[in-house]
Amino acid sequence: MTVKIGILGYGNLGKGVEFAIQQNDDLELVAVYTRRDPTSVKIATEGVEVRPAANLETGDEPIDVLIICGGSATDLPEQTPKYAALYNVVDSFDTHARIPEHFANVDAAAQQAGKTALISCGWDPGLFSLNRLFGNCFIPQGKDYTFWGKGISQGHSDALRRIPGVADAKQYTIPVPEALEAARSGKNPELTTREKHTRECWVVLEEGADPAAITEQIVNMPNYFDEYDVEVNFISQEELDRDHSAMPHGGFVLRSGQMASGDSSVIEYSLKLESNPNFTSSVLVCYARAIARLSAEGVTGAKTVFDIAPAYLSPFDGEYLRAHML
Amino acid sequence: MTVKIGILGYGNLGKGVEFAIQQNDDLELVAVYTRRDPTSVKIATEGVEVRPAANLETGDEPIDVLIICGGSATDLPEQTPKYAALYNVVDSFDTHARIPEHFANVDAAAQQAGKTALISCGWDPGLFSLNRLFGNCFIPQGKDYTFWGKGISQGHSDALRRIPGVADAKQYTIPVPEALEAARSGKNPELTTREKHTRECWVVLEEGADPAAITEQIVNMPNYFDEYDVEVNFISQEELDRDHSAMPHGGFVLRSGQMASGDSSVIEYSLKLESNPNFTSSVLVCYARAIARLSAEGVTGAKTVFDIAPAYLSPFDGEYLRAHML
Repeated sequence: MTVKIGILGYGNLGKGVEFAIQQNDDLELVAVYTRRDPTSVKIATEGVEVRPAANLETGDEPIDVLIICGGSATDLPEQTPKYAALYNVVDSFDTHARIPEHFANVDAAAQQAGKTALISCGWDPGLFSLNRLFGNCFIPQGKDYTFWGKGISQGHSDALRRIPGVADAKQYTIPVPEALEAARSGKNPELTTREKHTRECWVVLEEGADPAAITEQIVNMPNYFDEYDVEVNFISQEELDRDHSAMPHGGFVLRSGQMASGDSSVIEYSLKLESNPNFTSSVLVCYARAIARLSAEGVTGAKTVFDIAPAYLSPFDGEYLRAHML
Repeated sequence: MTVKIGILGYGNLGKGVEFAIQQNDDLELVAVYTRRDPTSVKIATEGVEVRPAANLETGDEPIDVLIICGGSATDLPEQTPKYAALYNVVDSFDTHARIPEHFANVDAAAQQAGKTALISCGWDPGLFSLNRLFGNCFIPQGKDYTFWGKGISQGHSDALRRIPGVADAKQYTIPVPEALEAARSGKNPELTTREKHTRECWVVLEEGADPAAITEQIVNMPNYFDEYDVEVNFISQEELDRDHSAMPHGGFVLRSGQMASGDSSVIEYSLKLESNPNFTSSVLVCYARAIARLSAEGVTGAKTVFDIAPAYLSPFDGEYLRAHML
């Protein structure tokens, strides 16, 4: 079964989906849909059209799954329910606190239209969520630890750039090695926010801006920086562009606890990614495959990674998987 | 929904299942079934009966799932198909090469009887298999690495004990730290058998046995030891019992490769277990919960961990899982 895929939005994630499709022979990119002028969007795949997003509204575009590559703040809350009424869809909605609301909206639209939708896919939420679930099942009495990084946090980089006097900035979230070791110890330590992560800032100042005053503003910024040990570095735009343009990320999910017999178990899952959007996209296309299959089986409504049997993610059949991967 | 569980076989794994049920309020141990004289088997749970395995043959025992805790060499190939014709069952069949044949036998029996059966559950096969599958999906062009240990290998310990002149023995499989680091590097190294693991033997000699001759036999034993760097230690039975009676285990599954864009991704999954059988049992009872639910939904036949949507493993409902773990 070939799965015909449409990409809505051609930013870092949309480009990543295009790359990921190249590594999966059973997936076919049908079109990239954009809200921009389609003639202004150049994509990498030859022979594939860029079409106006408005074309999707007929519900007639020849795609099995639409992968919606918008932002969680404003795009996805509107787009995913809208397009789930017209197509099978996958999104990477990552505002954890608003997932129940988003799920309900998408589920209602998809159920009514007989479509299948997967929300909040990627690695967190996504693969990290799976490992939190597995960990809590297999070690029912224990503690969860999630560490992020070393990697670029878009949210924290944006927060730096909103400070008057800051021309540009990148922020790395870095797990504290001693905290990671403590979580791995099997002793279920309590770890504070400050103990778990440090934050490393690379800041380009506007002309005449006062570095001392800006450092003060950064380290005291509520929610974003005030509970962390923060390192602030001032560099030129050239240096920022040269040394901090990549989008690495990753992290660790641990579950640690005691069996009823008293012996400890520790489960650790980690990712080390040179490109956050390209790996995320690779996860999205596998779940798009799963959604196409579930839809073909008559399953409808909103799903999350928790609802997808792992075999649906693979291009191989059950017999192959049992013989080679079990 | 309370899931009523029967345990067949009361060795280390059966005892572990009994422990694991204590940590899951929705699971109830109904009875332990044994081929031994039931009066000779003392179990830990008050008020629960030990019954003859023969009682199971009526198909009328009041259980939702039978967890079959026998050995893979001779018990499970016979027991799992037999009991899958009478009850929903879960086993931990771990002879990788014979999984396709075992699956077919169990599937035929379960399909005919309208029962649901999960085979090859635990951590390898089981959780490690899931991570091999996930890794191959999300990093389609890459390499797999599985490391086991540090932990007791029953198969290798048994092989030592079969040598004439050996009174008792334990064997630890130990990952080589440098190989683990190489696998983590994202450079997809080729690693030989010898480079990946070392084998540490603790041997009690019979009176008059020649340690040099036995060391020679061990290090040259085909398949088990000849391809590894092996350390042989001779100790007394008292020392073996005092220092090597625990059953720790664990290991690492890595998948490393390049996205179409050329950037590397590394996924690592690891377990560190003070008790191999007790953690394995904790996994088994979660899959027993899933099998009971699938059976209630009318799903029949043989399944593996690849076929089970993660949400089925948890005592919590979808709404709770989305709000707390996604």
